[in-house]
Amino acid sequence: MREWRGDDVTVREDRLATEEPLEIRLAWPDAPARGFVTTMRTPGHDFALAAGLAYAEGVFTSIDDVRTVAYCTDVNLLPEQEYNVVSIDLARPPVRWSDRTLAMTSACGVCGKQSIDAVFDIGAEPQPVQPIIDAQLARSLPDRLRPAQRIFDSTGGLHAAGLFDADGSPIVVREDIGRHNAVDKVVGQRLLDRGRTPPAALAVSGRLGFEIVQKAAVARIPVIVSVGAASSLAVKVADTFGVCLASFVRGERMVVLTHQDRLI
Amino acid sequence: MREWRGDDVTVREDRLATEEPLEIRLAWPDAPARGFVTTMRTPGHDFALAAGLAYAEGVFTSIDDVRTVAYCTDVNLLPEQEYNVVSIDLARPPVRWSDRTLAMTSACGVCGKQSIDAVFDIGAEPQPVQPIIDAQLARSLPDRLRPAQRIFDSTGGLHAAGLFDADGSPIVVREDIGRHNAVDKVVGQRLLDRGRTPPAALAVSGRLGFEIVQKAAVARIPVIVSVGAASSLAVKVADTFGVCLASFVRGERMVVLTHQDRLI
Repeated sequence: MREWRGDDVTVREDRLATEEPLEIRLAWPDAPARGFVTTMRTPGHDFALAAGLAYAEGVFTSIDDVRTVAYCTDVNLLPEQEYNVVSIDLARPPVRWSDRTLAMTSACGVCGKQSIDAVFDIGAEPQPVQPIIDAQLARSLPDRLRPAQRIFDSTGGLHAAGLFDADGSPIVVREDIGRHNAVDKVVGQRLLDRGRTPPAALAVSGRLGFEIVQKAAVARIPVIVSVGAASSLAVKVADTFGVCLASFVRGERMVVLTHQDRLI
Repeated sequence: MREWRGDDVTVREDRLATEEPLEIRLAWPDAPARGFVTTMRTPGHDFALAAGLAYAEGVFTSIDDVRTVAYCTDVNLLPEQEYNVVSIDLARPPVRWSDRTLAMTSACGVCGKQSIDAVFDIGAEPQPVQPIIDAQLARSLPDRLRPAQRIFDSTGGLHAAGLFDADGSPIVVREDIGRHNAVDKVVGQRLLDRGRTPPAALAVSGRLGFEIVQKAAVARIPVIVSVGAASSLAVKVADTFGVCLASFVRGERMVVLTHQDRLI
């Protein structure tokens, strides 16, 4: 790589965030294994990513229904695919997912209202809105996320997501080239760890779209704090499901968009 | 919305980047219309988005094969869906796309090499590496993108993409809540405008992943300039297809990752 600063050019080694595709497969008793989804991700914590993504899509509602999550050892795989294919072995058929889910969504015409219906369909329910975390503490979460962003420091190419307790302690923090993957990795890790106490808040380093709020609603996370802006549909979904959304949380600033009553 | 700055709290109206799903359908002679894809996007320039996305996925290779791009007037649509469903009417069947494309990709196991093969499959060919744009001019493109980012200024929630001539003049600039959508909108607009001279460069406000380089390779854009970081797979694809990739282009800085010889 050549780095220009004004008229000075220096040549040095690349430091890049790694991006590779991960294929996730599903298997359950008396059914052939099938492809679930392929996502571009930063390798690492792949089982958490697979578990979190499948959970967010309604494949299972309890981690007890997941027998194993493992890299495929299919004899047809090339050596370089070896750690890019993960299989989730379920104890029973998917709860709210089928091969036809994607096709159905795409065939029926869509609008914001239907997107919210889709979140209900996955199994999310509106949460009662109760105070859960101190407002000043919520505002400090991005600063608490940053020390854990070690890879970001060297490549500048990764998004971070973290789950936090009501006292602001990090439960799990993960990074990925994909914003959604980072959220799937923290939710999935929490599932794999059999964490029983619900986290108080999810903090993310980037912007907040519909899908991140969907994932939080399914995982019953009551507060989301983001460094960036939120979208209109993210606000609608958060409002419907009782999630407090705080955007532009930087330094002294915080813009609370929904369910202010979650903050103490 | 409530905005906190230190201990001061002000209540004001929301200003949010709009996010709504867009369903894209395909139709061609002697075949029933079918769903192609649904994407979350900021409404506006929907026909350009649909055309650009279909082109990037190998649905057509010449805009002359597109008869019309129009909002669906299906009687079964709810009023709020009216401007969220677009149909592309093709003069002949898709060139390199079928309903099974997604399923096949997901079923065969994946790695970086196969991702590059997939870009070949869509119809992209390596470009001869010739000088195309002045290095200092390339470095100025993000600054030239910014004046066009009007919506960003009010919501902070949109990504921008722009196509530029070799003299640094903007050909088309578009914004969207989705980074990929912004690129599809500029490429699609260029197609709909029947632009014959190839653009010299694509500038993007965010980070550079695999898919943005794929879209540029298919559209034969020789240079990509980004404000953010590039991923490892983005660099591999750019290297293979003769695309010059410049990352971290901010102020005096520019990090050139591939095909330096594109810059004069």
